[in-house]
Amino acid sequence: MDIKDGVLRIVFNRPHKRNAMSAQLVDEVLAVFEAIKNERAIRVVVLRGSEGNFCAGGDISTMNKFSDNSGNAISAQEAAWEFNRIFGRMITKVNQAPQIVITLLEGAVLGGGFGLACISDIAIADKNARIAMPETGLGLIPAQIAPFVVQRVGLMQARRLALLGERIDGEEAKDIGMVHYLTSSDIEMQAKLDDVLKMAKRCAPDANAKTKALMLQVGLFEQDELLDCAADMFAAAVVGPEGQEGTQAFVQKRKPAWAI
Amino acid sequence: MDIKDGVLRIVFNRPHKRNAMSAQLVDEVLAVFEAIKNERAIRVVVLRGSEGNFCAGGDISTMNKFSDNSGNAISAQEAAWEFNRIFGRMITKVNQAPQIVITLLEGAVLGGGFGLACISDIAIADKNARIAMPETGLGLIPAQIAPFVVQRVGLMQARRLALLGERIDGEEAKDIGMVHYLTSSDIEMQAKLDDVLKMAKRCAPDANAKTKALMLQVGLFEQDELLDCAADMFAAAVVGPEGQEGTQAFVQKRKPAWAI
Amino acid sequence: MDIKDGVLRIVFNRPHKRNAMSAQLVDEVLAVFEAIKNERAIRVVVLRGSEGNFCAGGDISTMNKFSDNSGNAISAQEAAWEFNRIFGRMITKVNQAPQIVITLLEGAVLGGGFGLACISDIAIADKNARIAMPETGLGLIPAQIAPFVVQRVGLMQARRLALLGERIDGEEAKDIGMVHYLTSSDIEMQAKLDDVLKMAKRCAPDANAKTKALMLQVGLFEQDELLDCAADMFAAAVVGPEGQEGTQAFVQKRKPAWAI
Repeated sequence: MDIKDGVLRIVFNRPHKRNAMSAQLVDEVLAVFEAIKNERAIRVVVLRGSEGNFCAGGDISTMNKFSDNSGNAISAQEAAWEFNRIFGRMITKVNQAPQIVITLLEGAVLGGGFGLACISDIAIADKNARIAMPETGLGLIPAQIAPFVVQRVGLMQARRLALLGERIDGEEAKDIGMVHYLTSSDIEMQAKLDDVLKMAKRCAPDANAKTKALMLQVGLFEQDELLDCAADMFAAAVVGPEGQEGTQAFVQKRKPAWAI
Repeated sequence: MDIKDGVLRIVFNRPHKRNAMSAQLVDEVLAVFEAIKNERAIRVVVLRGSEGNFCAGGDISTMNKFSDNSGNAISAQEAAWEFNRIFGRMITKVNQAPQIVITLLEGAVLGGGFGLACISDIAIADKNARIAMPETGLGLIPAQIAPFVVQRVGLMQARRLALLGERIDGEEAKDIGMVHYLTSSDIEMQAKLDDVLKMAKRCAPDANAKTKALMLQVGLFEQDELLDCAADMFAAAVVGPEGQEGTQAFVQKRKPAWAI
Repeated sequence: MDIKDGVLRIVFNRPHKRNAMSAQLVDEVLAVFEAIKNERAIRVVVLRGSEGNFCAGGDISTMNKFSDNSGNAISAQEAAWEFNRIFGRMITKVNQAPQIVITLLEGAVLGGGFGLACISDIAIADKNARIAMPETGLGLIPAQIAPFVVQRVGLMQARRLALLGERIDGEEAKDIGMVHYLTSSDIEMQAKLDDVLKMAKRCAPDANAKTKALMLQVGLFEQDELLDCAADMFAAAVVGPEGQEGTQAFVQKRKPAWAI
């Protein structure tokens, strides 16, 4: 983990498991996003895996580490429930982060790793990434990621990928609207990340956070009600510090303070 | 109709009408899917048409065959209502089938046939298929298929296809996210179907059925509630026969029982 | 503004502002669509901008023109609210117009102009169009357009475009499912518009209006309820004048009356 120039970089570091997430790693990611949820100085979070893989999903071998609040052992089924559900809490949290969340997808992008890619604001994929939902091939269910996958790629591709377990590469992931940018080497991926960070920096942090929150509400409320609420946000932004600085900078043909 | 190796094949057989569906054919398809709804031994259903066309929609000439429960004649408007609504009941049923539903799209894929394509888990299209919603050109409404079309290709393409009646081919259908695979001959289509069946076979039947049901619920429930329910499914799968077999097979580097 | 052969053409005419919309222009567009909402003789509305730009969004410099109903001055924040919200009322109205709405996208397609493109039934874009949501770069929020953008291009591309302010061209707009057709000159755009108008003319006006209304309801109601309602529409169409004319014309191998 590393913070520099408003960018927090998180590297999943379990390379012997292709960065499959233990219950502990899931907990740690959840804790980080909880800690930064009001931290506007951090404007971007970059998620990547160590040693050439993004994330191979949940590490099922860590599933039975759970106990109840009193420290008593719980049944295998209860442990499985907790192991699964906490992943869902984490991915929900990352989805709603006020920061721009970027995933760098290379090597294994499987199961829960696929889910994480689906909630990133910006996904950059290596063209040779190996992307799949292998759960039903193991007799299991892509349970916590299902809603995010459907929202990302649509029911049509979600059906195919979940029910066939078919592996796709980065190029196909771009074709089906799962990732935004395609790169073919580490150097290209780093250059594309730099481009994205440059664009991100030009956008006002609070306006971005509010815009993201607004877009995540679409479909959850009656539309006129949502538009009333959106107008509240707009009007507050116009008279607020970012709106004032942004429109003055535009008139004065200079960069706004947040872009420097 | 033909069952072999867990695959049920249904052929629409009204070639003189380019397989436009009579009320009776709609009834029969509905009855088949009702009969197999708890039948996990049937893992895949393949839908295709006879003699080079998939399905040209509803056969309106059969619309006035309806009578009420007492056998009395009903008005033309009532008959039209029943003819239309039963198609919607059928397509809803096929959409929710626990099996993987595959459509093989060639020749005419029109109106109701377009709708059936839109609810298939896997759609394989010939590049020269003729795909359209011609309803409003006849002064009619693509009524029962509208929700499934919007869900499949998005409101944006649904507007265009429904309001212009524009005909597209298989290639464009793939571009707009209506079909998954494109083939250019019978032999290629058969080969692609074989690929898909091979992938389907590797996935556990009950896990697949539950995953499909879960994905169809996305957007209908509050998300945390859905994720709680998904964790129930996951935990049950882990301790259930498929989860046990799947994870053991994985460790033992052998195929699980359902894949043999 | 110009009506001919059932086609109403509206040209945004503020070229010195790249057709950014003043509060007054927004009001005028709203009034036009209100006036034609029951006018089936107008079957298509074409929206375009003057002098090579479609629309650069809302013209913020006109924002402070508002006063309350008694003519008293209102605060800057209240004025911003009204300026924003009326745009949302206008775009909601255009989205629900019973006519086919076509946008011709060239030059600047920014902010509110982007939003208008997203609610058109048919969008034809010049490959060099400059398309973006620049709001957060100004410290502002793409407030009224957010729901329409998410519905058009999906949450995945909406996140990227809103949070990075990235500019895309017509080609990329087609790739991400924002526009239907791509052209590379004025002549090509005119030819494509002619094609579209020809297709539009073949479709029955009332059937089209009802189909569009139905598709806009998808996801807002319980599905079986929506399908019942859709069957009502279908049955009424079958026995109504358009359905009678359409099916007779089909049998008689002639064009229906509305297509002449």
